[in-house]
Amino acid sequence: MSYAQIAYEVSEGIATITLNRPDKLNAFTHVMRDELIDAFGAADADDEVRAVIVTGAGRGFCAGADLSAGADTFNASANDERAESRWSAGQIDGVPRDGGGTVALRIAESRKPVIAAFNGPAVGVGVTMMLPADIRLAAESARFGLVFARRGILPEAASTWFLPRVVGISQAMEWVATGRVFDAQEALSGRLVSHVVPDDDLLPAARGIAREIADNTSGISVAVSRQLLWGMLSADSPWEAHRLDSKAINHLGAAPDAAEGVSAFLAKRPAEFPMKVSTDYPDFIPPWPPRPER
Amino acid sequence: MSYAQIAYEVSEGIATITLNRPDKLNAFTHVMRDELIDAFGAADADDEVRAVIVTGAGRGFCAGADLSAGADTFNASANDERAESRWSAGQIDGVPRDGGGTVALRIAESRKPVIAAFNGPAVGVGVTMMLPADIRLAAESARFGLVFARRGILPEAASTWFLPRVVGISQAMEWVATGRVFDAQEALSGRLVSHVVPDDDLLPAARGIAREIADNTSGISVAVSRQLLWGMLSADSPWEAHRLDSKAINHLGAAPDAAEGVSAFLAKRPAEFPMKVSTDYPDFIPPWPPRPER
Amino acid sequence: MSYAQIAYEVSEGIATITLNRPDKLNAFTHVMRDELIDAFGAADADDEVRAVIVTGAGRGFCAGADLSAGADTFNASANDERAESRWSAGQIDGVPRDGGGTVALRIAESRKPVIAAFNGPAVGVGVTMMLPADIRLAAESARFGLVFARRGILPEAASTWFLPRVVGISQAMEWVATGRVFDAQEALSGRLVSHVVPDDDLLPAARGIAREIADNTSGISVAVSRQLLWGMLSADSPWEAHRLDSKAINHLGAAPDAAEGVSAFLAKRPAEFPMKVSTDYPDFIPPWPPRPER
Repeated sequence: MSYAQIAYEVSEGIATITLNRPDKLNAFTHVMRDELIDAFGAADADDEVRAVIVTGAGRGFCAGADLSAGADTFNASANDERAESRWSAGQIDGVPRDGGGTVALRIAESRKPVIAAFNGPAVGVGVTMMLPADIRLAAESARFGLVFARRGILPEAASTWFLPRVVGISQAMEWVATGRVFDAQEALSGRLVSHVVPDDDLLPAARGIAREIADNTSGISVAVSRQLLWGMLSADSPWEAHRLDSKAINHLGAAPDAAEGVSAFLAKRPAEFPMKVSTDYPDFIPPWPPRPER
Repeated sequence: MSYAQIAYEVSEGIATITLNRPDKLNAFTHVMRDELIDAFGAADADDEVRAVIVTGAGRGFCAGADLSAGADTFNASANDERAESRWSAGQIDGVPRDGGGTVALRIAESRKPVIAAFNGPAVGVGVTMMLPADIRLAAESARFGLVFARRGILPEAASTWFLPRVVGISQAMEWVATGRVFDAQEALSGRLVSHVVPDDDLLPAARGIAREIADNTSGISVAVSRQLLWGMLSADSPWEAHRLDSKAINHLGAAPDAAEGVSAFLAKRPAEFPMKVSTDYPDFIPPWPPRPER
Repeated sequence: MSYAQIAYEVSEGIATITLNRPDKLNAFTHVMRDELIDAFGAADADDEVRAVIVTGAGRGFCAGADLSAGADTFNASANDERAESRWSAGQIDGVPRDGGGTVALRIAESRKPVIAAFNGPAVGVGVTMMLPADIRLAAESARFGLVFARRGILPEAASTWFLPRVVGISQAMEWVATGRVFDAQEALSGRLVSHVVPDDDLLPAARGIAREIADNTSGISVAVSRQLLWGMLSADSPWEAHRLDSKAINHLGAAPDAAEGVSAFLAKRPAEFPMKVSTDYPDFIPPWPPRPER
């Protein structure tokens, strides 16, 4: 696949998406947005892909919104045509949809686990769009900023939903209310990332986790688990999980991957799971995140 | 009480449940399931019991499902009779109920606080069924694995609900998607356990926490607090807590345990709380977890 | 403003509320309750105020309920007149409203970010009423106790809702079930506070965070972000955030603070945000926390 502002590569079962405007610290644009959404669709459709890594080209991860429009940067109505292409993939409640949110919701829907590898500065949407990823790692020199209040706007990309669930409400409020830029160690202690590694070890570390997934697990198991773990964040009662996982474990427990998984374990050999996410994903798993009815 | 696969002992106000198939690393069976559910019923019915500790006999905590049925281990329909006894205590939505879930939901309902003391390897259901416990401790040599995706199945025992609430969604996804086995220090930093102690100190540490509860607190207070703290995880607004805790504090504040609690504190003497969970538990506290209506 | 049991001071954009019964370790009374609620109203109405710090006079933060009524302390019906003034600002479901809860819900509603600076012992309602604050810091010598079960009552001030969201359900249960008193380091590792500093550095540290907010951010941005981050804790789907933040970012992105925020950033000068919370707060942001319908 050929993209203008990202690179997409699949190798040994791992898709790597690289934000690729290094001269602009990979600042976010509507082109990048459309390409990211397309690339996650490609990863989901490709049974070879068992995990997705997102990282940045050059010395930055993503500097946030491209501010080249100056004071009108966040003014959707200042330029209808630009607004249409930048802010929205359609409208919601009569306003252009926030562009970061369209990416975040697409990542949330992913059937493949998503690993964000922050190689350098990640600011604004550069942080928020990666909150629906499953695992986040940072290079030692990475820095972060939820700087929205310093620009007169607010956290977008559905991050008012994701951020408190990932880092807790108190840490979320401290970073958002101050808008401060913070380093990788603060990101680690605040649980925005789960691993900080020397800069040169970042991609190997991200690929190491992706390898653990690709080499050892059933893609169907991971896809179903991902939907249920995220989805059950909104369930009122563990009985809802019991109902769904009883159904799912009865279904998957009688399917070929479970037979192979147990047999391989007992024989102390690597498992070769036969099922495919593209064709064998159970249709009774509720889609997550739930879409509005309109 | 006499059980085949667990031991149940009450001493000085503390019930200790020991998973007791040491030659099988205490692998989970339908017999163990039924006995665990029975033992939690016994602990709830016994006003002497102020806290429950769960641990394992021998060098393991619980190795997970007993895999002696090989490739058919998780195939409920391969053997109806086995399925009936293993997977279910009845059906839900037309399928056999997941056995781990029946234990997890029973632990969730407990009116006594539950402390899990992981003395050795805890894998699969050996971890997930203990997520509804209140406090988890690990011996230094304990290891953990949410290995479901490596066997071609998915996290059960209602753990898609409990796990993200206990350890956070990112840590939950990393452990589930990789299926890796990890040590006690990773369990501590990932907040699956709150204390790691030298192996020989594990039971003394668990009993130490249980003693803090048994020696100092009102059983009614702890039972009501447990239901409300877990139950309010699903409440939309703190107004729901305000409504319920206004009612509860008016009720309990006028009851004998509050008079004794304040009087003893002011007199700098140990309190002797007169109320009993079996008879004095307020009936207006909503049961948690909420059951399906059928 | 002149209060009997608190002090309220505004300086350089920061309101400081000091619990002020130092001879009683600032034990909580109905007078203090009414004054706290009034003071948070004053802070919200004053556009000069960009952040609120709460701390205690003397060597304590707040010793909890004033126990001078002895065994009848928590018995609302023992003295109707006292009950009316102490426990309630009205009734809810036919019982006097819990006094701590009226403060907690008022802090939750705050349009200014709230920083709790625990200078010394904080016990019972002294802890729980501060859980809706956004940021909590502790002096090294501070101590904490959720001692309710040791007094025969239960956690109040809507803390059964707030506590598990701030510190996680397992930590919440350990502190509540044991009722133990714990030090600042345990509060830090358990995430009740996010910073522990030497005693003499406490207020400077709290003011430092308040300064980061006051000197760098838009008050409208912080107020809207605060309502949405807390409010989205109860939203079932990130689509609800996407819907609201699309609307909010379209609205605020076209407003003067965003123009100033981006222009100032590009010019590398401090921003001077023109909008005011008192007049410019967008009316489509749902109020948080949602009140019962009656």
